[in-house]
Amino acid sequence: MSNVNRQLCLAARPKGMLAPGDLQLVESPLPEVQDGQALAHVRYLSVDPTMRIWMADIAQYMPPVALGEVMRAFGFAEVVESRHPHYKKGDKIVGLTGLQDYVLIDGEQKGTFQKIPAVPFVSDTAFLGVLGINGVTAYFGMMEIAKPEKGETLVVSAAAGATGSIAGQIGKIHGCRVVGIAGSDDKCKWLTGELGFDAAVNYKHPDWKEQLAAATPKGVDIDFENVGGEIMNAVLNRMNLHGRVVLCGLISGYTKEDPALASFATVLIKRLRVQGFLIVDYASRFTEAAMQLGKWKMFGKLKDRETLVEGLEKAPEAINMLFTGGNIGKLIVKL
Amino acid sequence: MSNVNRQLCLAARPKGMLAPGDLQLVESPLPEVQDGQALAHVRYLSVDPTMRIWMADIAQYMPPVALGEVMRAFGFAEVVESRHPHYKKGDKIVGLTGLQDYVLIDGEQKGTFQKIPAVPFVSDTAFLGVLGINGVTAYFGMMEIAKPEKGETLVVSAAAGATGSIAGQIGKIHGCRVVGIAGSDDKCKWLTGELGFDAAVNYKHPDWKEQLAAATPKGVDIDFENVGGEIMNAVLNRMNLHGRVVLCGLISGYTKEDPALASFATVLIKRLRVQGFLIVDYASRFTEAAMQLGKWKMFGKLKDRETLVEGLEKAPEAINMLFTGGNIGKLIVKL
Repeated sequence: MSNVNRQLCLAARPKGMLAPGDLQLVESPLPEVQDGQALAHVRYLSVDPTMRIWMADIAQYMPPVALGEVMRAFGFAEVVESRHPHYKKGDKIVGLTGLQDYVLIDGEQKGTFQKIPAVPFVSDTAFLGVLGINGVTAYFGMMEIAKPEKGETLVVSAAAGATGSIAGQIGKIHGCRVVGIAGSDDKCKWLTGELGFDAAVNYKHPDWKEQLAAATPKGVDIDFENVGGEIMNAVLNRMNLHGRVVLCGLISGYTKEDPALASFATVLIKRLRVQGFLIVDYASRFTEAAMQLGKWKMFGKLKDRETLVEGLEKAPEAINMLFTGGNIGKLIVKL
Repeated sequence: MSNVNRQLCLAARPKGMLAPGDLQLVESPLPEVQDGQALAHVRYLSVDPTMRIWMADIAQYMPPVALGEVMRAFGFAEVVESRHPHYKKGDKIVGLTGLQDYVLIDGEQKGTFQKIPAVPFVSDTAFLGVLGINGVTAYFGMMEIAKPEKGETLVVSAAAGATGSIAGQIGKIHGCRVVGIAGSDDKCKWLTGELGFDAAVNYKHPDWKEQLAAATPKGVDIDFENVGGEIMNAVLNRMNLHGRVVLCGLISGYTKEDPALASFATVLIKRLRVQGFLIVDYASRFTEAAMQLGKWKMFGKLKDRETLVEGLEKAPEAINMLFTGGNIGKLIVKL
C-alpha cells in the first residue's frame, strides 16, 4: 500500500469543456485511520454528466464542489483498514469516493457509502452502472414518472449512455415501441442489435429529424430526456397530446454558458407533462430498484456495456468524453 | 335589423403585432335563415391572447384561421331569427361567433354554442369572462393541476388579466399566499387593493426581480404561468423543490418569431412538474366549473373587471392591447 493518496482537485471552474489544469493532480499523505474511521482503496470511478454541474458555481441540488476540494465522484472501493464499527477490511463499497486513490470514511459519512453484497455473475462495476446510480435513475424515471404502457412509443435521448440504455430496455420490458437517439452509427447498431430497441437515430445525420419522424409513426408518448436543446425540441415536436417528458438530464447544456433552452410552446399546445427528476429524491428506495434491476439482469432482460479508461490522471479526459459522445454504455475510470 | 353583416376577415398573417389590413372589414349580405338554422346578433366579443395563435400558420390545438375566413373569436349573441330546433328568438348564447355582427348557426354547429340562463345580478359579459372561458380556465388550472394547499405560495403572471385575476383569487380562497405579476402600478394596486392578493409586482420596475424575491420569502410552490420567457424564468428561479407550474399561456412569445424560450435547467434541478394546459380538454365539465365560479361570485369571493372597447372595427386594436398590456381584467369589444 502506497503512502501517497493521489487526488484530482478542482483548481478552476471549467468554461465549456474541461481544460488542462481545471482538475489538478495533487499528492497527499495517506491519512492515519483513527477510531471510528475506515480507509478504502478506490478501484473504479464512475464518470457522470452531473459532475460537470458540480463543477459550476450555480444553484444546484448539492453544493458545488469548492475550489481546492477533491472532485466529487461516485466510485467503487475496497476497505483496506478499518476502525469503524460498520466496515471491516475487505468490504466492498460504493458511494461518493471522489476522484482519488483512497477515501477516508468516518462516522459522519455514514450513509454516504453502501456495502455491496457478493452476487454471483455480477461484476463489481455493475454496482456503478446498471445496478447503481444509472440503473436506479432509469428505473424510477420510467416506473414512477413515465409509467409506460404497452403499445406506447418511448423515445430516449443519449440512448447509448449508461442511463438511457437502461431506460430504453425498461420500456421494452413494458411493451413499448422504443426509439433511441444517439451520436454514432455504432451506438445505433448496439441499440437495435443488442438491446432490442425498435429503432435508433443518429442525430449527426443531416436527415435525422425525418428519420425520427419515420421511426415514430404513431407519435411519441414518452420522452426520456437526457440531452435538452435541439434534440429535445425535435422530440417534443413528435409528441402526442398529453405526453410525458421525464426530464432526467440536459447534457447538451452543461458545457455551455447559455442554459439548455427549449420551447415551452410545444409543452403548452400539446398539454405535455414535464417532470424534472433527480435520483436524490429516491435515495431511500435504492434497494427496491436494485433488486428489480438485478432480477431483470439475471434473466437477460437488461444488457449493459462499459467503456473503461485506465488511470486516475485520465479522469478529466473521460469527463470530456461524455460531452463529445466518446463512450458507449457506462463510462468508468479504472484505477 | 340591418341587411348587412360586417365581418373582420383574416387578410394577412400578422408578423408580431397586428398591422392595419391584417384583419379586413368586409360587408356581406345577411344570410337567409334556412330550415335547421338560426341567426344571432353578436353583442359582445371576447378578446383573447389565443386569437393571435389562431392567426399564425403553426401547428396548434385547432386549425389556424384560413386566409379570407372570418376571424375566429368567442362572443355573446342574441338569437334574432330561428328555424333551428334548439334555439328560439331571444335566446342568449355564447360560443365561437367570430368577429362579425351576425352569426349563422346551423345544425352542424350544435355544441359550438351554449345557451345562457338568465341569472339575477350577473351581467351578460360575465359569461365571456369570469363565468366563461377565463373563469373555467382558471378553475381547472388551479383545481385539477395546481391543487393548491393552505399556506402555499402561488405566483400568477399576467395577474391582472381575465384568467390570471381569477386564478389568483381561487388561490386566496384556498388559503395560499398569492403574488401577482403585472405590467403597471395601477394593475398592481387593483390586485392587492380590490382582489386581496398578498403582493403584486410590476415587472416594468427595474428591481422587479428583487421585489418578487421579497414577496415570496418562502419561495414559490405554484406558478400559474400565462406569460413565458423572462418573466417565467424569474418565477422558476424562485420556485421550491417539487413545485408545480400550470402552463396556461405564453403570451410574451405570441407576437415573436422565436418561440417562448425558457430554461428547462431549473425544471430539472428543482424537480418541477410543468403541465401544459388548455381548456379544450375540459369542455365536457364547463357546467361544473361555472356553477362553482358562480357561487364564489355570488358570495363576493370572486371579483372581476372589464375593459370595454366599442365597435367591431376596433377589434384589431383591442387584440394588440393584450400584448401591450392596455387592459385590466376582461377585454371585450362591444358591438
